Amino acid sequence: MPDRNKLTFIIGGGRSGKSAHAETLAKALPSPWTYIATAQAYDGEMRERIALHRSRRGEGWATIDAPLDLASALEALPDNQPVLVDCLTLWLTNHMLADHDIGAECRRLADVLSRPRGPWFVVSNEVGQGIVPDNALARRFRDDAGRLNQQVAAIADTVLLMVAGLPLKVK
Amino acid sequence: MPDRNKLTFIIGGGRSGKSAHAETLAKALPSPWTYIATAQAYDGEMRERIALHRSRRGEGWATIDAPLDLASALEALPDNQPVLVDCLTLWLTNHMLADHDIGAECRRLADVLSRPRGPWFVVSNEVGQGIVPDNALARRFRDDAGRLNQQVAAIADTVLLMVAGLPLKVK
Amino acid sequence: MPDRNKLTFIIGGGRSGKSAHAETLAKALPSPWTYIATAQAYDGEMRERIALHRSRRGEGWATIDAPLDLASALEALPDNQPVLVDCLTLWLTNHMLADHDIGAECRRLADVLSRPRGPWFVVSNEVGQGIVPDNALARRFRDDAGRLNQQVAAIADTVLLMVAGLPLKVK
Repeated sequence: MPDRNKLTFIIGGGRSGKSAHAETLAKALPSPWTYIATAQAYDGEMRERIALHRSRRGEGWATIDAPLDLASALEALPDNQPVLVDCLTLWLTNHMLADHDIGAECRRLADVLSRPRGPWFVVSNEVGQGIVPDNALARRFRDDAGRLNQQVAAIADTVLLMVAGLPLKVK
Repeated sequence: MPDRNKLTFIIGGGRSGKSAHAETLAKALPSPWTYIATAQAYDGEMRERIALHRSRRGEGWATIDAPLDLASALEALPDNQPVLVDCLTLWLTNHMLADHDIGAECRRLADVLSRPRGPWFVVSNEVGQGIVPDNALARRFRDDAGRLNQQVAAIADTVLLMVAGLPLKVK
Repeated sequence: MPDRNKLTFIIGGGRSGKSAHAETLAKALPSPWTYIATAQAYDGEMRERIALHRSRRGEGWATIDAPLDLASALEALPDNQPVLVDCLTLWLTNHMLADHDIGAECRRLADVLSRPRGPWFVVSNEVGQGIVPDNALARRFRDDAGRLNQQVAAIADTVLLMVAGLPLKVK
């Protein structure tokens, strides 16, 4: 099994097919598959999006909710199983809303991701290719997300940029 | 003629050189060339942009306006002629403003594009790589555009991402 | 020295690692290294960003400030030395705020960049892959930045798109 203990990082814009591609990659490996969801259903739009993702994944997935303590959720996983983390930008949003120390949280997460114990697939959003946002909070989020994406891409074995549902190999 | 009956999908950000590159690809093939415009000149800025594109294309193009019924415009075309559709995101905007059923319109368009009867070049915008927009309509547009781009990329023979005027081959 | 008199263009979103990668490329060549800064410290956030970049670069760099007359700064440089220009989008912003003739300024800059006299590394932002901005000034900036990026990419020997800190070769 050539991709045992490898980290694959899948980055792309909104609706670029990141989650669907990550699911396809994970499901090409033997089950059981674990899905770690970082989304919090704090409004109707988000609830809909979560339900849509869940119905697309179909049978055979164990779902773990980890809106904040993603590092511990990863550490508690058994070895050698395909795991999909969806997604880092929502996880970052949750920590920003909770006013946590972003630098410390990102270092702790990167530390766990640097020692993958299975074929792990991590999804994140590219948010920095539009106009610089007007408000300071959005600019801070954009900076923090960009920094986190760089950290994870640096330790990943494979990095894919999703373009209109198609993967472009970056690393 | 190796690219008879092929669909080429050209995606990129604003001012990334999508239209100019698509025109170059089409004009490398024997005329007559057909340009299907989806833009509606609803304000002065848009009128200017349309005039600019038209003057750059120069002689030898037949222009067809299809702000809404793009599928029928494509079906009415003769076989084996280079056709440029510019662009899908404006077409989508027109349907959203008219409050049409986006899912149904996209399926009908994708159906026609899946059976290209010439070397067809279709241009669209990447709009999902910035910060998630504040307003719900912009978020809906971003989702619908992303979904449509995925549909078209999936059936296209060639997919190019434009970066600063240069094509990056995705498929 | 194979990359003498070459222009390398490094484009990417916010926090995509453009500056850091450009510094790495320049520092792989023999010193002295020249850093041409286009940033103006007009507020605290920008002052912080400038200080951060400066501390990361470390020793051995000569810094030249050229918020507006970048072309003359480049023309005054000695031959055969690694030079980093960081960045074109801030330079463009400065000219827009000063209400200068953008077309003329861009032509003059592109003219100088088309005759590099050393290994020159030029950094710029991709700003066109989000939702079309609401306000007309931001749309104009997006258009002008896109056009400038196309001009520079066309004359560059190498074009790199930064994705999460990793370079993707476009040209």
